[in-house]
Amino acid sequence: MRALEQKILQEGKVLPGNILKVGSFLNHQIDTGFILEIGQEIAKIYSDREVTKILTIEASGIAIGMGVGVAMQLPIVFAKKNKHANISGDVYKTCVHSYTHNTEYTVILSKDFLGPEDKVVIVDDFLANGKALMGLIDIVKQSGATLVGCSCVIEKGFQGGGDALRKMGVRVESLAIIESMDNDSVTFRR
Amino acid sequence: MRALEQKILQEGKVLPGNILKVGSFLNHQIDTGFILEIGQEIAKIYSDREVTKILTIEASGIAIGMGVGVAMQLPIVFAKKNKHANISGDVYKTCVHSYTHNTEYTVILSKDFLGPEDKVVIVDDFLANGKALMGLIDIVKQSGATLVGCSCVIEKGFQGGGDALRKMGVRVESLAIIESMDNDSVTFRR
Repeated sequence: MRALEQKILQEGKVLPGNILKVGSFLNHQIDTGFILEIGQEIAKIYSDREVTKILTIEASGIAIGMGVGVAMQLPIVFAKKNKHANISGDVYKTCVHSYTHNTEYTVILSKDFLGPEDKVVIVDDFLANGKALMGLIDIVKQSGATLVGCSCVIEKGFQGGGDALRKMGVRVESLAIIESMDNDSVTFRR
Repeated sequence: MRALEQKILQEGKVLPGNILKVGSFLNHQIDTGFILEIGQEIAKIYSDREVTKILTIEASGIAIGMGVGVAMQLPIVFAKKNKHANISGDVYKTCVHSYTHNTEYTVILSKDFLGPEDKVVIVDDFLANGKALMGLIDIVKQSGATLVGCSCVIEKGFQGGGDALRKMGVRVESLAIIESMDNDSVTFRR
């Protein structure tokens, strides 16, 4: 998505530790009009497939999910990163290692909102080593739903998570894939 | 908002501890079309005021923020509940007591995304004792921005947070105010 690549080049900041800050439009401040465009772009990818639900993960995934859900006129459901007091009853549960924070966390989703009848597209803001996506894919498997594909806004290709999932046969289509980055430049995969 | 009250009556579940579960459409699974309607309803409240930015708090506030941001064609910015590794530089910071989880947590917002030139509407999914809103109002004050008003989707009127803020002179307009609730019934303020 060319407009996204331009926005990353214009507004993104590369920090030590392979961190790309895009908080001006994607995951702290949110450019709502641009998120709707992102949603339409992801909707196009799956326009020939039946999809019943968009799955994402709190917190930054929710805005992306909204963009895609609006474009596809579908409900979204977001997995929660800790056991919240106001989730009761049966949940799907999985464990994810966070690269950014170097911790393990539990991800849960109420069984009320995903089941064998669902055809699911998973979306998130970033795809790096793929641990969060693998957690969400595990939840889709537990639910018996069909995974249609995974689309993240920005994939850090050099961290390998996206390619590992593709080798496992998962459809992964990110809107921008970064091949390499340092203080001075960001290079996209062609 | 009559459609919201009906949805609460149809889909909401009252649990012990003054918890109202509306995870089927508001804060776990999200009915994207309905959130857009909610956004339009909140936009109407402020249609005669200049607003430059929507402020909310992760995680459940983000979807509401998106609905309002889309309706008002404004950027949103969401406060984060913990210090994230990928927020660097100067932040506004405040402390909030969580009624639901009975803990204190720190709320931060990058100084890059809110300043004296901003006119802010704060939105969130729930307003109970008002602690989260007070934290966000404190952040608006720190930034020097002007607070235009606060709109939550569901206010638990019986917990008093909304009325306390109104007494302090804050414009608080919630879309549904619950006067009382128990296992069998939910009564709205008229």
